[in-house]
Amino acid sequence: MRVFGIDPGSQRTGYGCVDSDGRRHQLVLCGAVRAGVAATFPEQLSIIYRELSAHIAAQRPDVVVIESIFHAVNARSALKLGHARGVAMLAATEAGVTVVEYTPAEIKRSVVGYGRAEKAQVGQMVKLLLGLDAVPAPHDAADALAVAICHVHGGKGTPAKGSKAATSWRHYQPVARAAR
Amino acid sequence: MRVFGIDPGSQRTGYGCVDSDGRRHQLVLCGAVRAGVAATFPEQLSIIYRELSAHIAAQRPDVVVIESIFHAVNARSALKLGHARGVAMLAATEAGVTVVEYTPAEIKRSVVGYGRAEKAQVGQMVKLLLGLDAVPAPHDAADALAVAICHVHGGKGTPAKGSKAATSWRHYQPVARAAR
Repeated sequence: MRVFGIDPGSQRTGYGCVDSDGRRHQLVLCGAVRAGVAATFPEQLSIIYRELSAHIAAQRPDVVVIESIFHAVNARSALKLGHARGVAMLAATEAGVTVVEYTPAEIKRSVVGYGRAEKAQVGQMVKLLLGLDAVPAPHDAADALAVAICHVHGGKGTPAKGSKAATSWRHYQPVARAAR
Repeated sequence: MRVFGIDPGSQRTGYGCVDSDGRRHQLVLCGAVRAGVAATFPEQLSIIYRELSAHIAAQRPDVVVIESIFHAVNARSALKLGHARGVAMLAATEAGVTVVEYTPAEIKRSVVGYGRAEKAQVGQMVKLLLGLDAVPAPHDAADALAVAICHVHGGKGTPAKGSKAATSWRHYQPVARAAR
């Protein structure tokens, strides 16, 4: 299974693609779309859409996964984030790929084993689970990989409800060792 | 000048296209994208994007105008609206058309002469200014035409700041009569 994770943002949108047989996970690619360089907000949206569309077309994932965010800091930041998230979802749908959403707590619980884990812990576990030499940078890329890992860990996401993701950090140690 | 106005929403996105020589305005087309019929939210975004892209390609407007919303009811509704607004902006940018934004108060002031006008007043003025027999329906279409009229009334919108839109209801009576 090939999973393409997205961590949307108007300035920087992280993406991370993972191959998995259900037990071992392998990094395919990761990075960040730096849309903040564009002169206008509509142009930023175009950059996000085009770069994500190109990656999705090239990697042909089975599913695109994205964090669901319902508790933004305020309405203004939620609105701006919504624009970026909308074009990210569109890039998947226009490529004919199903979109699955996970809450931040589901992702952290699945990757770290604790729903309120810190960003740094998530990065460390992504490094461990994918057998990497370093935490992927920028952090948006690591966050996108975390969403992808949540899905390959058996998360069902929004469409199906009731995630079956394991909830213990210890659960992942053998997998992590095997992936090294 | 041909102006294409958009009133985005995840369930229904209004659009309205107006031709103007600066004094007289003529309705080209208006309507609403009913994306709410789609099974999933990503599919709704695809419907909005595709239908708006088709209309923009067919009408070839000089500019796409859209309401700027920074005071949504709450973060959750702002996030959802942001998705729809993001793909609406993308439809314009991907068609190579500039996007200009107006605040709700700028639009009401320009169309009705009063920044806190009611929805019904906006609809009546749209009918009057375009010389129509009835208020365009659904109200999303009328709202989209109001944004377009705001621009042809000399609004500069976000890129240029400092709208020069006239601020009196009376100002529009002669124009409205002439357009009938």
